[in-house]
Amino acid sequence: MPEMNPADLIQRATQWWSTAIIDMKPGVIRFRGYPIEQLIGAISFPQMIWLMLRGELPSAEQGALLEAALVSAVDHGPQAPSIAISRMAVTCGLPLNGAMASAINVLDDIHGGAGEQCMELYAAIAQRLDGGTALERAVVEALDTFTAQHGKIIPGFGHRFHPTDPRSPRLLSLVDAARDKGVIAGRFADIGRAVEGELQRRKGRKIPMNIDGATAVIYAELGFSPPLGRGLFILSRSVGILAHAWEQSQQGGRIKGPMPPSISYTYTGSPERTLSEAAGQGPDTKQGAASQR
Amino acid sequence: MPEMNPADLIQRATQWWSTAIIDMKPGVIRFRGYPIEQLIGAISFPQMIWLMLRGELPSAEQGALLEAALVSAVDHGPQAPSIAISRMAVTCGLPLNGAMASAINVLDDIHGGAGEQCMELYAAIAQRLDGGTALERAVVEALDTFTAQHGKIIPGFGHRFHPTDPRSPRLLSLVDAARDKGVIAGRFADIGRAVEGELQRRKGRKIPMNIDGATAVIYAELGFSPPLGRGLFILSRSVGILAHAWEQSQQGGRIKGPMPPSISYTYTGSPERTLSEAAGQGPDTKQGAASQR
Amino acid sequence: MPEMNPADLIQRATQWWSTAIIDMKPGVIRFRGYPIEQLIGAISFPQMIWLMLRGELPSAEQGALLEAALVSAVDHGPQAPSIAISRMAVTCGLPLNGAMASAINVLDDIHGGAGEQCMELYAAIAQRLDGGTALERAVVEALDTFTAQHGKIIPGFGHRFHPTDPRSPRLLSLVDAARDKGVIAGRFADIGRAVEGELQRRKGRKIPMNIDGATAVIYAELGFSPPLGRGLFILSRSVGILAHAWEQSQQGGRIKGPMPPSISYTYTGSPERTLSEAAGQGPDTKQGAASQR
Amino acid sequence: MPEMNPADLIQRATQWWSTAIIDMKPGVIRFRGYPIEQLIGAISFPQMIWLMLRGELPSAEQGALLEAALVSAVDHGPQAPSIAISRMAVTCGLPLNGAMASAINVLDDIHGGAGEQCMELYAAIAQRLDGGTALERAVVEALDTFTAQHGKIIPGFGHRFHPTDPRSPRLLSLVDAARDKGVIAGRFADIGRAVEGELQRRKGRKIPMNIDGATAVIYAELGFSPPLGRGLFILSRSVGILAHAWEQSQQGGRIKGPMPPSISYTYTGSPERTLSEAAGQGPDTKQGAASQR
Repeated sequence: MPEMNPADLIQRATQWWSTAIIDMKPGVIRFRGYPIEQLIGAISFPQMIWLMLRGELPSAEQGALLEAALVSAVDHGPQAPSIAISRMAVTCGLPLNGAMASAINVLDDIHGGAGEQCMELYAAIAQRLDGGTALERAVVEALDTFTAQHGKIIPGFGHRFHPTDPRSPRLLSLVDAARDKGVIAGRFADIGRAVEGELQRRKGRKIPMNIDGATAVIYAELGFSPPLGRGLFILSRSVGILAHAWEQSQQGGRIKGPMPPSISYTYTGSPERTLSEAAGQGPDTKQGAASQR
Repeated sequence: MPEMNPADLIQRATQWWSTAIIDMKPGVIRFRGYPIEQLIGAISFPQMIWLMLRGELPSAEQGALLEAALVSAVDHGPQAPSIAISRMAVTCGLPLNGAMASAINVLDDIHGGAGEQCMELYAAIAQRLDGGTALERAVVEALDTFTAQHGKIIPGFGHRFHPTDPRSPRLLSLVDAARDKGVIAGRFADIGRAVEGELQRRKGRKIPMNIDGATAVIYAELGFSPPLGRGLFILSRSVGILAHAWEQSQQGGRIKGPMPPSISYTYTGSPERTLSEAAGQGPDTKQGAASQR
Repeated sequence: MPEMNPADLIQRATQWWSTAIIDMKPGVIRFRGYPIEQLIGAISFPQMIWLMLRGELPSAEQGALLEAALVSAVDHGPQAPSIAISRMAVTCGLPLNGAMASAINVLDDIHGGAGEQCMELYAAIAQRLDGGTALERAVVEALDTFTAQHGKIIPGFGHRFHPTDPRSPRLLSLVDAARDKGVIAGRFADIGRAVEGELQRRKGRKIPMNIDGATAVIYAELGFSPPLGRGLFILSRSVGILAHAWEQSQQGGRIKGPMPPSISYTYTGSPERTLSEAAGQGPDTKQGAASQR
Repeated sequence: MPEMNPADLIQRATQWWSTAIIDMKPGVIRFRGYPIEQLIGAISFPQMIWLMLRGELPSAEQGALLEAALVSAVDHGPQAPSIAISRMAVTCGLPLNGAMASAINVLDDIHGGAGEQCMELYAAIAQRLDGGTALERAVVEALDTFTAQHGKIIPGFGHRFHPTDPRSPRLLSLVDAARDKGVIAGRFADIGRAVEGELQRRKGRKIPMNIDGATAVIYAELGFSPPLGRGLFILSRSVGILAHAWEQSQQGGRIKGPMPPSISYTYTGSPERTLSEAAGQGPDTKQGAASQR
C-alpha cells in the first residue's frame, strides 16, 4: 500500500524507466535527438545501429567498416549449435521469433563470446601500451595473464575447421585501408597482428586470426566496448539464424532431432533394476514414511 | 540399433540437414555461391540480408529501400513489452544474448506479427486484382473477409499512441520515388493507400497507415513473403532491444520489476482461508488416501 | 504526459496487473487464500500445482493421478529436440536457466502440443456425447473433422519409436483404478479407448494410445482445459530438460553441434560464382545507385 | 568430407551424445535403470526429480523434505520480473511454452541465483568446519571472503519486502523435525542459523533467513550441489510462471507493457537536433565516402 502521496508516486513511476535513446510524443519519434523521418533513407542500417548504441552518428567510412564486420559473421552452417537450434525449433512448430530466440540465447560465453573476450585481451594489451610497455612485451604479459585465468584457448585465433579463416585477410585489408585514410588509428590492428605473431612463436606454427579476432580488431578500432562486441556479433549472426529458420520452414520436417532416428545415442547408466520393497523403495514407496508427515 | 549398413547410415546422416545457403570447406565459405571474401566490403548489410534470405543479390536501389524499412522500425520505447523485457532481463543478471532472446521471443503474432498480417491482407487484395477485380472492390472484399476472421483491428493502420505515425509518410515518399525510377512496380503502394481510404470511409475519420502498414508495402513491393515480413521486423527491432539492454546494463539496477515497489498490484482472489481437516484437506492431506496407492 | 489526476493514475497503475493467485503483504504470502506456511509440508507438489492453476485444492487421490501423469512424461532421450537443445546450450556456456529456456521454448504445437490437441479431440467427442450422439459415431465424426482440418496424424496415438508406448498401459490402469474408487467418472478413458479402436478399424492395425493420449485422458478426467495439458507437459518435461542440462555440464564439451564434426551437411545451393560488375553487382555494388539516394 | 571409414563414423555419431539418465529401445523406457512403468504411480514427483538429477531414489522422508522446498518457492507475485515477463509475453500472443521460456530465462544470477550462491556460502563454511575451524569463526571468515568478492548483499538473508519471510520458519521447523528423525544430519541448519546470528551482530538488527537461505539449507542437507539449487528453484518457480501466464491468457489484454500507457518514461537524452550537412552527415550521408568503397 503506497505511503507516498499520489503525485510523488506518479513521479517515481515515470522515472522507473529512463532512457537517452528515444523520445516520443504523439506524432513524434526521435532517436538520440534526431527525428526518425530525417534518418530514414538518409543513413545506413549500420549507421543506425551505431547511433542507437553509441549516441552519435558515425562518419560514412566508420559506418562502412562496421558494415563489413556485420556482413562477415552472419552464418557458419547447420552444424553450429545456434543454427541447428534454429532449424530444429522450426520443425517443432515455432514461428520465426521463437526459433530465433532459442538460437540467439545460446550465443553465450563460449559460442558467442569469443569476440568479446578477444576485445578484452586487446584492451589489456592496449592498457599496457598506455603504461609505456613495448608492444611485444605487452602481448607476452597479457597472454600469460589470460591463459592463467582462462586456459589455453585464445579467443580470436585458430579455428577448428579452417586452417585459414577466409574472412580474416579481407577484413584486415579493409582495416589497413581505413588506417591509410585516417579513419582509424590502427592501434588494434597492430595489437592483433602482434598476438598472432607471439602465438606462432609459442606454438611453432601459425595460429591465424579468425573471424572473432578480426572483427574484434574492427570493433575495438571503432571504439565499441567488449560486451557490445558480443551484441554486434548477435545482430550479425541473427541474419543466418533467420535465414536457416526460414529455409527449414520451407523444407518441412516434423520434430527433427539432431540426427536421423536410425542413429541412437550411447547409454552409460545403470543396468535394468527393479524398485525393491527394501529400504522403503517399493510400489508404495510414497507412503514409506507417511506417519512422519 | 542401426539395421542399415554403415555407408548408408553415413549418407543419411550427411543428408539430415541440407541447405542452399552456405557451402563450407576448410578455408572456404561461400554464401549462395559467392565467396564471403568477395562480399565483405562490397555489399551492404541489407543486401547481405536479402542474399541470405532470397538467394540472389538485390540491386543497390532495392537494397536501399530495404534499408530504409530496417532503419525505421528499430525501437518504440521502454513501454513496449519487448523493450521492457530486455531491460528487466539485464537487471536479473542476464548477458546481452539472454536479454535479447527473452525479448525477441515475444515479437509474436500480436506484438511482432502486425507487419506479417498486413502483408497477408495486401496479398489477398493483390490476388483479387489478378483475378480481374477492380481495386476498390478488392479492398472492400478483403477487408470484410479479414474482419470476419480476425476482428476489427486492421494490422498496419491506426496507432494507439500516434495520431499520425511519423515514420509512414517518409517511407511512402521513398516508395513513390522508387516507383518513379522503375525500381518497384508500385502495386502495393496503391493497395495500401486504397485500404487507408476505405478505412476512412468506414470509420468516418482517418486511420492512417502506421509503421507496420508502410513497411508491409515495402516488403511486399520487394517480393518478400509475409512471414519474412515478421523476420525482417525482428532483425530491425533487435537493434532497439540490444540498445536498451546495453543502456540498462550501464545504468545498473537490481531485479527491476515492471513498476516501482511502492506500486502494488490488485488481488482479486479468495479471502484468507485455512486448510481444513475436512474432505482430506488438513496438515496431513498428502496422506488423505494413502491406502489407495 | 498524464492528463489524469495523480490519484486516478495511481489507481490505474495499481490495477494494471491483477491476479487471484497470490496475495502479499509484508510478512504475509497467501496462495488462493491459503497462507503459504500452512501449505508447506502439508500438501504435495502436484497438489500445489493444481491449486495454483485451478484455484482450489484437489483431493489426495486426484493429486495422485496428476502426479502419475507428471512422473510419466519427464524425458524421452537426447534425440528429442528439446533435450538436444538443452545439452547443446550448456556446451555453449549457458547456465541452467538459459539452457532450460531455449529448450522449453520449443515445446510448441508439434513437439509439445500433442497432448493439448488430443485433449481437444477428446473434448470434441465429449461435446457430441452431450448432444446425444452415441460414442462410436461421435468418434467417427470427430476424427473425420480432425483429419480434414489437421491432416492424418492423430495426436495421442501411435509412436515413431515405440510399437507400444510402455507408459500408456500403466497410466490407463491407474485411471481404471481411480474410476473404480469413484475419483473420476471415466468418461475420457472410454473416449480414448474408443478412438484407439476406431483407428485400428481404419488402419487395419493397432495404433496404440501413446504418452500424450494417456496423459490427455488423465488431464481431461481431472478437468484441466487443453492448453493446460500443454502447460502440465511442460512442467513434467522440464525435469528431463534440467537433468540432461546438468549431466552435460558435468561431462564438459565445448560448442557441441548436433553431430560430430566429421559428419557434414548437404549443400544444395548455387555453385561457386563471382560478383559481377554487371547489373550494379560488383566490388562497389553498394554505390550502384548512389545518385538516387 | 569424412576421412574415416563408415563404421568408425557411425560409432562416433552414436557416441556423440551419451547419457546415464535414460535407456530406450522400442517398447522400453528405463530411467536410471528403472522401467518407467514401475515408477508411475509408485514414486512421487519430487522423488522422480531426485532420481533424474542424482541417479538414485531418495527415501520417502528425503522426498518429503525436497517436496516442501519445491512447494515453498513457486511464486512471488506479478511485480517479480519473471512473473511480469510471463504475463506480458502472453499479451503479445505467445503460447504457454513461449511465455514460460522468456520468463525462465531471466532466473539468472541475480533473480534466480540467490539460492545457488547461498549454497556456495554454506559450502565454504562447511569446508572450513571440515578443516577443524570452529563454527563461529568459519562463518566470520566465509562472510568476509564473500563480501570482499561479491559485495554487501548476502544471498539468503534479508528481504526487500518481508521483515520476516513467512516461508522460512516453517521450512526450518521441517528441517529440525527431519534432523530429529535422523533423516538429515542438520549441519547446514546449524550453519544457516550461525550466519543469521553473525549478520545480526554485524548489522545490529535481525537479518532473517529468507526463502533462498531456507531452501539452500534443505538442498544442501539433501546433498544437492549449488547449481542444482538453482535448477530446483527453476522447477518450483515454473509453476507460478505457468499459473500467471494461464491467468493472463484468460484475462485477455493486448500487448501490455509494464505500466499503463498513461504513465510514460523519463527521457534523459539529447534535445532535438537535425542531421547537418557538415561532417558528412546530411540527407545523403550514406554517400559521404562512397569513393572509398
